[in-house]
Amino acid sequence: MPLTLEYAFTVTVELGEPREVGTTYAGFRRVIPIAGGTVDGPALTGEVLPGGADWNLVRPDGAVHVWARYEIRSADGAVITVVNEGLADPAGPPGGGAARACPTHPVFEVPEGGPTWLNTAFFAGRLSLPTEPGDPVAVDVHRILAQ
Amino acid sequence: MPLTLEYAFTVTVELGEPREVGTTYAGFRRVIPIAGGTVDGPALTGEVLPGGADWNLVRPDGAVHVWARYEIRSADGAVITVVNEGLADPAGPPGGGAARACPTHPVFEVPEGGPTWLNTAFFAGRLSLPTEPGDPVAVDVHRILAQ
Amino acid sequence: MPLTLEYAFTVTVELGEPREVGTTYAGFRRVIPIAGGTVDGPALTGEVLPGGADWNLVRPDGAVHVWARYEIRSADGAVITVVNEGLADPAGPPGGGAARACPTHPVFEVPEGGPTWLNTAFFAGRLSLPTEPGDPVAVDVHRILAQ
Amino acid sequence: MPLTLEYAFTVTVELGEPREVGTTYAGFRRVIPIAGGTVDGPALTGEVLPGGADWNLVRPDGAVHVWARYEIRSADGAVITVVNEGLADPAGPPGGGAARACPTHPVFEVPEGGPTWLNTAFFAGRLSLPTEPGDPVAVDVHRILAQ
Repeated sequence: MPLTLEYAFTVTVELGEPREVGTTYAGFRRVIPIAGGTVDGPALTGEVLPGGADWNLVRPDGAVHVWARYEIRSADGAVITVVNEGLADPAGPPGGGAARACPTHPVFEVPEGGPTWLNTAFFAGRLSLPTEPGDPVAVDVHRILAQ
Repeated sequence: MPLTLEYAFTVTVELGEPREVGTTYAGFRRVIPIAGGTVDGPALTGEVLPGGADWNLVRPDGAVHVWARYEIRSADGAVITVVNEGLADPAGPPGGGAARACPTHPVFEVPEGGPTWLNTAFFAGRLSLPTEPGDPVAVDVHRILAQ
Repeated sequence: MPLTLEYAFTVTVELGEPREVGTTYAGFRRVIPIAGGTVDGPALTGEVLPGGADWNLVRPDGAVHVWARYEIRSADGAVITVVNEGLADPAGPPGGGAARACPTHPVFEVPEGGPTWLNTAFFAGRLSLPTEPGDPVAVDVHRILAQ
Repeated sequence: MPLTLEYAFTVTVELGEPREVGTTYAGFRRVIPIAGGTVDGPALTGEVLPGGADWNLVRPDGAVHVWARYEIRSADGAVITVVNEGLADPAGPPGGGAARACPTHPVFEVPEGGPTWLNTAFFAGRLSLPTEPGDPVAVDVHRILAQ
């Protein structure tokens, strides 16, 4: 049986002013603060809490590595940590054209009393790339089911 | 546009005798050596090299955390490192019944001259759980496309 | 020849209001924002930039795991990322009494034009535990020399 | 009060034939299997179990990054996992001459019934670099005390 994807919710993230580190042994590093946002969808609603960042790296091979750590709060008041790692392919999408999104691997840590099914499920994200600097980004979170 | 999954190849992994660590502060730890195997599919063929292991952990919440690091060699002779992390949900699949597989997040590191598209693409795996102890496990690797 | 420690600089970190996640499968999680601070010592001077956090975890065995990611800016203007991981032993120091500090493993990522020797050196930190809530914490960074 | 180092034990590791991956986006990667060895010292005695490896990387800035994961078994029969990460500075030791050792950050995971103080203590290692290919390497493990 193949893997299937089930849409769960979208995290819309407002970003602060990027802080440029520059070119290091690992690639070109920028730190993009998380300023807030919303969580909305059939499986979860809530808000993105300000704090944390994407420690973003353009690797020597041109791939853009996303590594973001921040918190969301569910409508029921549970504070949930998020680590969302992704990779934008410099080759762009198969078939040509510019990339408008990249896949990610979001991981959640949920306390007792919150939506703890997020702790044991597994997810794939679609991170939309902003078309204008300063635009929010959206992560469409899908549960991966392996039957 | 949603995420789509594109089947790439299957890694069939033969396992050695598990080495039991026991219950630690993190959960119940076992180390399962990688003994060999094959890689077969439309996007890659080759073999699994003996060496490395799955540093497997049953977490306090019952989720089984897979973290395997090992190497494969493509039919063209490129040695590729693999880190394959996954999570088996103790709740089993939605709809009931026993879990026969769990999703994973495989990451590849490929040298110059090898299939370097694996470095910048992003993948989801379906790790079949063995039905008999000692059976090989199969990881069906799918490319995640985010358009 | 033994290892030797060479004092390099002290990072004094002002902390924001902790954000409590609560008890998860990993332990008791709190997120403590980094609000600012100073860097002072023979090997580096500068400031701590607001942003980032300590994703702090009290493990089931009582050890307090520190994992902080944030940035500093040297007096010369280089922005440097820091990941500082540490562990406070619940047993306290050998010889008795309450722990006043814990050891850490700080890692720096420095861009071209900055103090790039921090990229290739290796360090041990002494993280002072605050005596009053809201007090800044100090990390005394020592270079580890292995001759 | 400064940090102090207290010698605990030496892990002498026999290595298998390195498996060369080659030059990837991260640097020059080799995988060096762990073939066995001994643990000896005032705080722990035992053996190194065959299995696991050092996924060794020469970074673009010339630093050699060591990342080894393997198991040891104490004389009392406890199986303990080790992750030992280190960094050899391409500049060599201050004062000149060739590097004969590099510092490391070893982390242990110990099951109930074993020497569980290793779980909550914090360590610095001195990894001797072999003078002849095929020689074993020795890691002198020191406990870091922060009072």
